[in-house]
Amino acid sequence: MDKEYFMREAIELSKRSVESGGGPFGAVVVRDGAIVSRGANSVTVSNDPTAHAEVCAIRDACRKVGDFKLTGCELYTSCEPCPMCLSAAYWAGIDKIYYGNTRHDAADAGFDDSFIYDEIALKPAERSIPSENLLNTEAKAAFDMWRAKPDKVEY
Amino acid sequence: MDKEYFMREAIELSKRSVESGGGPFGAVVVRDGAIVSRGANSVTVSNDPTAHAEVCAIRDACRKVGDFKLTGCELYTSCEPCPMCLSAAYWAGIDKIYYGNTRHDAADAGFDDSFIYDEIALKPAERSIPSENLLNTEAKAAFDMWRAKPDKVEY
Repeated sequence: MDKEYFMREAIELSKRSVESGGGPFGAVVVRDGAIVSRGANSVTVSNDPTAHAEVCAIRDACRKVGDFKLTGCELYTSCEPCPMCLSAAYWAGIDKIYYGNTRHDAADAGFDDSFIYDEIALKPAERSIPSENLLNTEAKAAFDMWRAKPDKVEY
Repeated sequence: MDKEYFMREAIELSKRSVESGGGPFGAVVVRDGAIVSRGANSVTVSNDPTAHAEVCAIRDACRKVGDFKLTGCELYTSCEPCPMCLSAAYWAGIDKIYYGNTRHDAADAGFDDSFIYDEIALKPAERSIPSENLLNTEAKAAFDMWRAKPDKVEY
């Protein structure tokens, strides 16, 4: 089983997703040369804006391995990850990402996430979603509790 | 009910989350002056690296309103969103974000997401998670199917 095999599986999932009413995206998580989990874009079919193929595959892989870290795992996705999915890959500790379509191919097909890349680079006050800092002092209480907690599970 | 009321609810969730073994983060989604959903960080308790408070609140709000868009909704979060949660807010079409702790407060408490902000701004080849484009031509098939599908649900 080589990397083309796993990418073809992600591509197959992206095509099957279109057939079943989902978005044209598929992904697989691979560890030690075997598929751990599969995901397909189900934003519209499950009413979940976070249900991108990569997030679905990462969540399912974590369920299967019983860990919130996917160290030693590779992510094969039919399309370059959006910033949400890329961030999820960092939080999960994914080792390597293989992608089929580029973000430019995605934009040509009507899936343009470049605006999110642009927005993230801006300061909160300059973004198109207005953002306001509120009750900063009160909010710190949870972090104080966290620091003081002896048995906390860090991540 | 004013904005401080909703932020205090997000802060309360962040504190209760620490008490119940989760991360020190809470969030609420508000529409028309009423709370639609609540979320708390459950990364370690549910083995889900995407289960940040904001993602949990957004996913639950979408389930409740039966839509993958949260137009007209505001997100109150006890801490400035990480890039994953910020991107999720864009995909969900959130109108405004209120946050309690800043990302600098979070970093002081051991939750430093600045490295993800830095990574996202880099080209794929320059990132710490290596990234490789593979089978680009084959991957385009799903986008061709998508373009040709007459009854597709766009988002």
